[in-house]
Amino acid sequence: MKTRNTFGIAIHGGAGTISKSELSAEKEQEYHAALEEALSIGHSILAQGGTAIDAVEMAINSLENCPLFNAGKGAVFCADGRFELDASIMNGKDLSAGAVAGVKGIANPISLARKVFEKTQHVLLAGKGAMDFAKSIGVNMEEDAYFHTEHRYKQWQDLVGTDTVALDHGSKKSKNLGTVGAVAYDKMGDIAAGTSTGGMTNKAFSRVGDTPIIGSGTYANNKTCAISCTGHGEFFLRAVVAYDISCLMEYGGLSLEQACEKVVNEKLVEFGGEGGLIAVDNLGNICLPYNSDGMYRGWAKEDGVIYTKIHE
Amino acid sequence: MKTRNTFGIAIHGGAGTISKSELSAEKEQEYHAALEEALSIGHSILAQGGTAIDAVEMAINSLENCPLFNAGKGAVFCADGRFELDASIMNGKDLSAGAVAGVKGIANPISLARKVFEKTQHVLLAGKGAMDFAKSIGVNMEEDAYFHTEHRYKQWQDLVGTDTVALDHGSKKSKNLGTVGAVAYDKMGDIAAGTSTGGMTNKAFSRVGDTPIIGSGTYANNKTCAISCTGHGEFFLRAVVAYDISCLMEYGGLSLEQACEKVVNEKLVEFGGEGGLIAVDNLGNICLPYNSDGMYRGWAKEDGVIYTKIHE
Repeated sequence: MKTRNTFGIAIHGGAGTISKSELSAEKEQEYHAALEEALSIGHSILAQGGTAIDAVEMAINSLENCPLFNAGKGAVFCADGRFELDASIMNGKDLSAGAVAGVKGIANPISLARKVFEKTQHVLLAGKGAMDFAKSIGVNMEEDAYFHTEHRYKQWQDLVGTDTVALDHGSKKSKNLGTVGAVAYDKMGDIAAGTSTGGMTNKAFSRVGDTPIIGSGTYANNKTCAISCTGHGEFFLRAVVAYDISCLMEYGGLSLEQACEKVVNEKLVEFGGEGGLIAVDNLGNICLPYNSDGMYRGWAKEDGVIYTKIHE
Repeated sequence: MKTRNTFGIAIHGGAGTISKSELSAEKEQEYHAALEEALSIGHSILAQGGTAIDAVEMAINSLENCPLFNAGKGAVFCADGRFELDASIMNGKDLSAGAVAGVKGIANPISLARKVFEKTQHVLLAGKGAMDFAKSIGVNMEEDAYFHTEHRYKQWQDLVGTDTVALDHGSKKSKNLGTVGAVAYDKMGDIAAGTSTGGMTNKAFSRVGDTPIIGSGTYANNKTCAISCTGHGEFFLRAVVAYDISCLMEYGGLSLEQACEKVVNEKLVEFGGEGGLIAVDNLGNICLPYNSDGMYRGWAKEDGVIYTKIHE
């Protein structure tokens, strides 16, 4: 197997309105520390010659396990006071992909999404069926109490009993953020992407956003790029955002940076889709564009320096 | 409102192995008649100056109501002996889109998919949540008996109790077919697409294929084309087939016909994805490519001549 010395990883913890006045120095430090930990885990896997998809999964597990983000532990409340989680993961090496939508009681939906393509002939499993699959392969189910966090409960209490649905992104309240994702390229030249979320606060009718949709929230193809999105999911679905970046590169001849700029800061802005994404190509370029006020994000390359940012 | 004299519609009733020896002359005539009826309904709407999205919805309703096809009445059985239906619809005029996945008891999932974008701020609703939405807007729920057909029951009996999942497409049994779809262009110059299915016989874990996924099973954009797919859903999901056609036109400069040829007869064949699709652009071009043995399909333009075909 040929290897090379370049590798890298980028992650996000959600894009939207992140009010500086509401973000205390202490809380800001907690976000930086959580992003740094996830990057460190992913970077370590890549440095040891591990695969991009392993780095993506493990970095996302770290973010899912952190109560700060709207994924796994710390997910937002649905209208019924419970938690419905979505995730997808794709391997650019062979275009294998797995996804789960509307699962309850799963601590790490990104790992279940990966099991979907490893253990079934399917790509996307939904709701109770996806949970039955999880049980059939011995995945431990968590009680609702595991996902309960006080700050998400308070956000829900502001909306419960109304028809209002709050995005985890773009709300006036800076706390309403947190879809997580990772993209990576490894020493073998392969790239991968994954995304995990709890969706929108007070969402009803098992609304599914772009996160579990291959082509919209997540896409990876060694020929072009690996992408993980975060933002107003309905717009990202209709704009098929992740695959759009790939097509602009493959058919339009744009660089990763040019394609990201066009989709996030031109097309999505015109369309009204607030959010951002993280992107890598297999040359080692990393882009982290967003058209919102901020995006929790970070990246690390082979030199081991870890960068984490919230605003510009 | 500017109008023009051109309009047209194309439909499909599934692509796969359609064995001529197993298809009796009588049964073949039934298929042609069902396709002709759906086309006639859609054509009539367009001829009277109706919208492409109305023509798409009404033509698909006709196919959903026909027990020959794997959508609505006539859907295949899941592993639990019930019926889980998926559908999506998109309007090329404004990129509005709606979809439902894994719904039970809905006679016309394509109409419910349309209600999703007309009555909510969402694109995709799944499972019980989508059914709760249907009830909330007064959609009549059908008992399982409504969906039961003897030929689907026999197909399921061949598989029940096993882990085998049969595609409605590409199975060795020619009866195993029938995802339906429609694409249309109207006198106003707008285009639309929709797709509806019962998925795979004996499917478990609420597997979702490409049908309810905007960008994979369905896509419409006045700038390029309207597409409805049918085939081995997992491959269509990973290849983001419908949006791929659109991108090859918009970024790659291909014509509708060239883009269809490249995706269906080159890319999908290499990838191992059996199936086909129907496509229109707003110039009035219609393509109906497939890489399988046959595809139930038909089309009609402003001259009112209705064409229906199964094999070449």
